[in-house]
Amino acid sequence: MQQTEHIKEFGGWLNRYKHESTSCNCSMTFSVYLPPQATVSPVPVLYWLSGLTCSDDNARTKAGMQRYAAELGLAIVFPDTSPRGADVADERSRWDLGKGAGFYVNSTQEPWRSHYQMYDYVTRELPALIESELPVLKDRKSICGHSMGGHGALICALKNPGAYRSVSAFSPICNPILSGWGQGCFSAYLGSDEESWKEYDATCLIEDGAQKIPLLIDCGSNDEYLVDQLYIDSLVTACRANDFPLNLRMQRDYDHSYHFVSSFIGEHLAYHAEALHGDRDR
Amino acid sequence: MQQTEHIKEFGGWLNRYKHESTSCNCSMTFSVYLPPQATVSPVPVLYWLSGLTCSDDNARTKAGMQRYAAELGLAIVFPDTSPRGADVADERSRWDLGKGAGFYVNSTQEPWRSHYQMYDYVTRELPALIESELPVLKDRKSICGHSMGGHGALICALKNPGAYRSVSAFSPICNPILSGWGQGCFSAYLGSDEESWKEYDATCLIEDGAQKIPLLIDCGSNDEYLVDQLYIDSLVTACRANDFPLNLRMQRDYDHSYHFVSSFIGEHLAYHAEALHGDRDR
Repeated sequence: MQQTEHIKEFGGWLNRYKHESTSCNCSMTFSVYLPPQATVSPVPVLYWLSGLTCSDDNARTKAGMQRYAAELGLAIVFPDTSPRGADVADERSRWDLGKGAGFYVNSTQEPWRSHYQMYDYVTRELPALIESELPVLKDRKSICGHSMGGHGALICALKNPGAYRSVSAFSPICNPILSGWGQGCFSAYLGSDEESWKEYDATCLIEDGAQKIPLLIDCGSNDEYLVDQLYIDSLVTACRANDFPLNLRMQRDYDHSYHFVSSFIGEHLAYHAEALHGDRDR
Repeated sequence: MQQTEHIKEFGGWLNRYKHESTSCNCSMTFSVYLPPQATVSPVPVLYWLSGLTCSDDNARTKAGMQRYAAELGLAIVFPDTSPRGADVADERSRWDLGKGAGFYVNSTQEPWRSHYQMYDYVTRELPALIESELPVLKDRKSICGHSMGGHGALICALKNPGAYRSVSAFSPICNPILSGWGQGCFSAYLGSDEESWKEYDATCLIEDGAQKIPLLIDCGSNDEYLVDQLYIDSLVTACRANDFPLNLRMQRDYDHSYHFVSSFIGEHLAYHAEALHGDRDR
């Protein structure tokens, strides 16, 4: 991997890298914040998955996470949200399908499947690369995300028991097989067999008996996508029916934007830090 | 003034307004963050002036100020950086002249002078509007800015003794009559008489005996504009020669970006809060 940016921030370094991804079969860009502690010894890692239309740049610029990461001694990895490049399939007339809208699934359908393998990319290829190249601890990773990335964080944690020490989400798309955004992407990337969609749907995974891990979710009561796209209620029902641990915090008057995310990101980072540094003192 | 956005953030509200400016003779947009305390009683105000190419959106999105403002009970006003609109003069081929580059001066030259009156706008018209319409304290304002906005903050404070309780700047253009950016804008907005430029140059104002107010300035040692545009050394020399109080902190390895600003904005807000809340306990 090739470092393309190196920016000092809160005593640590915000780096950007480019590499040839074998999962996505194209050149991929991602950013990593390394806190000051990483110059002394390896640190735990939080993976941040962003939402529709985002790249690796949105959260690193707007979420205000680096301040807390520097205090707590956490690295943060910001992957892109889809494969990129001139030969990658896209739907130019739509911002909610194709580039910027990978939905963290492995596509099985033409013309998408040759590049849209974001699930493998964020759960396997990228962590392996990060762990081999950067000063991070191998068995201490957590995951968090916003909107489409909140969906991504939930399914990555639910489908990989033990891989993540903690998971949290802001305004996640909880039941994408019912949401317009989810249906648009899943039908394109996964085809018409709706059974295959359930494998990438947090609510369905919990209904199907996913291994328990506590879910911390913040959502704004004034989120403009709450009713039509997020389907938080579906997740709540599934968690109740399956005795699945969910801490859902409906935050009064907040919307779907990064102004909302920034308001509570400090609490999420503290939550992950506790899980990630957990047995440091044992 | 008309409110066009109302976004909950850190328990307070980030609002955006539009109004017809008499100084700039056009419709202007600005943002204000009102901390939670402002719902109880009026709060002090910090004016933030942004740099070249920015609008009212950059700092509110990238600087991470609102978190500290909420803790400290400060309102923050984010003005635009120039007049806007189809009939406002511009130099489309350049990003460092015209729209987005008002340089906080009152233009005297055609075709600029009918709209480019940003000095009057930020020092007179906007504070009067804010003080009449929003829950802020009249005699408690401070000013801060970045790059071209750092220059703006310094000249506003230096030219208006007593108007601002404190002033600070990130990576300011300290001696614009020597910098390429400053010369380009000053020659256009103020004409060929270079004597008239000095009225808007922090270094010249200090050399000419400006009333003393402590200056807090942070600048990155790896700032890509440090040598060619900022002329910090000129300011240091002028301050030494005139016994002018300057706290210049060269921050090792930091650059010119908002990643640098966000790293130290908390310290600047604490500095301003101390001045602004100063005699609360007297």
